[in-house]
Amino acid sequence: MDGRTRFLNAARREYVDTRPVWMMRQAGRFLPEYRAIREKTSFLELCANPELACEVSLQPVRRFDVDAAIIFSDILVPIAKMGQTLSFGAGHGPRLEPPIRSRDDFQKLRRIDPYTETPEVHQTVQLVRDAVGTEKAVIGFAGAPFTLLAYMVDGAGSRGFPETKRLLFSEPELAHEILALISDVIVDYLAMQIDAGADAVQLFDSWAGLLSPDDFDEFAGAYAASIMERLADRGTVRIYFPKSIGAYLERAQAVPCEVVGVDWAQDLARARALFEPDRALQGNLDPTALLGSREQLDIRIDKMLAATRGYAGHIVNLGHGIIPSTDPESALHFVRRVHELGKGCCDSDEE
Amino acid sequence: MDGRTRFLNAARREYVDTRPVWMMRQAGRFLPEYRAIREKTSFLELCANPELACEVSLQPVRRFDVDAAIIFSDILVPIAKMGQTLSFGAGHGPRLEPPIRSRDDFQKLRRIDPYTETPEVHQTVQLVRDAVGTEKAVIGFAGAPFTLLAYMVDGAGSRGFPETKRLLFSEPELAHEILALISDVIVDYLAMQIDAGADAVQLFDSWAGLLSPDDFDEFAGAYAASIMERLADRGTVRIYFPKSIGAYLERAQAVPCEVVGVDWAQDLARARALFEPDRALQGNLDPTALLGSREQLDIRIDKMLAATRGYAGHIVNLGHGIIPSTDPESALHFVRRVHELGKGCCDSDEE
Repeated sequence: MDGRTRFLNAARREYVDTRPVWMMRQAGRFLPEYRAIREKTSFLELCANPELACEVSLQPVRRFDVDAAIIFSDILVPIAKMGQTLSFGAGHGPRLEPPIRSRDDFQKLRRIDPYTETPEVHQTVQLVRDAVGTEKAVIGFAGAPFTLLAYMVDGAGSRGFPETKRLLFSEPELAHEILALISDVIVDYLAMQIDAGADAVQLFDSWAGLLSPDDFDEFAGAYAASIMERLADRGTVRIYFPKSIGAYLERAQAVPCEVVGVDWAQDLARARALFEPDRALQGNLDPTALLGSREQLDIRIDKMLAATRGYAGHIVNLGHGIIPSTDPESALHFVRRVHELGKGCCDSDEE
Repeated sequence: MDGRTRFLNAARREYVDTRPVWMMRQAGRFLPEYRAIREKTSFLELCANPELACEVSLQPVRRFDVDAAIIFSDILVPIAKMGQTLSFGAGHGPRLEPPIRSRDDFQKLRRIDPYTETPEVHQTVQLVRDAVGTEKAVIGFAGAPFTLLAYMVDGAGSRGFPETKRLLFSEPELAHEILALISDVIVDYLAMQIDAGADAVQLFDSWAGLLSPDDFDEFAGAYAASIMERLADRGTVRIYFPKSIGAYLERAQAVPCEVVGVDWAQDLARARALFEPDRALQGNLDPTALLGSREQLDIRIDKMLAATRGYAGHIVNLGHGIIPSTDPESALHFVRRVHELGKGCCDSDEE
């Protein structure tokens, strides 16, 4: 069974010969061949260069034989075209300027056409699709509206995103209008990636866990659901990854999708109990387990695999992006062990 | 009913006339009278000065009539005496140098006697106790072992504390030895605060949520439990606040204590279902709700109060520390509304 079939079957809870596996942030950061490219190319130049972005997307596929290639880009790439300026300082995270804090700021934002504004992303997906053929799945992605709003309003990554929360709780109507605009852009942006050949699209709601349960429903879940609904007839696998919402994971049931991403703080068996048989699960090894000893790593891999034994719907992944200091040998061991021990994973527990 | 009785009764799930309330980080940060002191005094100088630390501890009691005074200090104060150097850069969080990464580093650490090494904390508790008399509860505190380990190993606050996780997963035996030493120190440190007059001690496990459920049990919960067990015969209220463990909040049941702190990402009704009638709950308003409009704030205060109606065991608080940019008028409104609407909170739902 090729990796693409394995990935797509698991996403649809159908028979697989072993567990499909890929790693969030596999394209970049921890690989020496990525760093070699980055020595000559800035992060944003790399995002804007389809040939190099394709190359970086393929590096982990070649090295680890993972079942899916995720395209190299950043969740802020489409957002930056809406009217803010995106920059990455050395050693710092992204910065979007000027921050959106008022209705006047909002009115300067515009809905973009991703085909004309982010053609490099369309082309990157096409190049990756052509390169992997039908052997591997191709995953496109976008940020979810609440997570993108957080960057747009606070202007940079921050602990707690207080300006974003201030906006939600002082001008909720304005927050909803911005979220609706972002949602429209993201639907078009993901549809473009699907048109370019993506088998799956992942919606990253990295900051969803900053919200209390009811605020999640109102400001995050509702917009993720709207996007997923509007992509339903595409026949593409839709992955929703709401990070750090373990306290109210059941709220993600309201977001239509084939696959729910599960972070490492969650008990995968509990997630299975919540979502089987309607959704597949993706995750959830603690990425820092790859920094430890082989013995401790294996304990955690095996426990993760045991939690979904007998259920076809498990795409193995880390519970968050791979840590930059990870030894590629540990990542290789992880992928190989999952492929080896995942054999027979579809068989029922009784066998 | 005075605030101290209200606080202690709620902690023991006994009758209260209204909800007791205080705010994490109420001593400092967001108050102009605190900032006035900080203009002339560094953070660490303030921690080391009992008269000023007492004054800062009392400021929110005077201004808001909260039911408890928490002493002004920092969780790293006792840890820094064990063999690392603590500093706070302007605009940066704490830094502990050199970081503890190896057995050699560990062997340079020593168990301290808090009476001789942190006498200023003993004196601060005494001064606050004398100042509030029996009108208000006095809360001492410490960091929980895993949270302190994270600072000791990574050397500073960091997203994800990768070096700490590397240690846990590569040399778990060494991690356990360091955690055991920290636990011994923290037992002595909290016992000293109890001797000085604290009515309650809170153990802050701010980074517990970085761990997967089983790793929480092994590296965080077990040490918090050990500390709490060793303080059981003191008759003091023990508060355990494991932040961001909503995905596996039930694991906190293994930590003996009178009160469980609940962060704002949690559904307070779910926490109540897990812990009533054995534990009181403390929390859990989203601190950023204080940045919003009065209307939105009231919606969230009222929802929080509704979740524990009919249960005496609720000490109202924020779900995390108050945000520095909070308007003191919003904090005052919060405290007053809780005291006003909390009347009759002990009555059963049927009435």
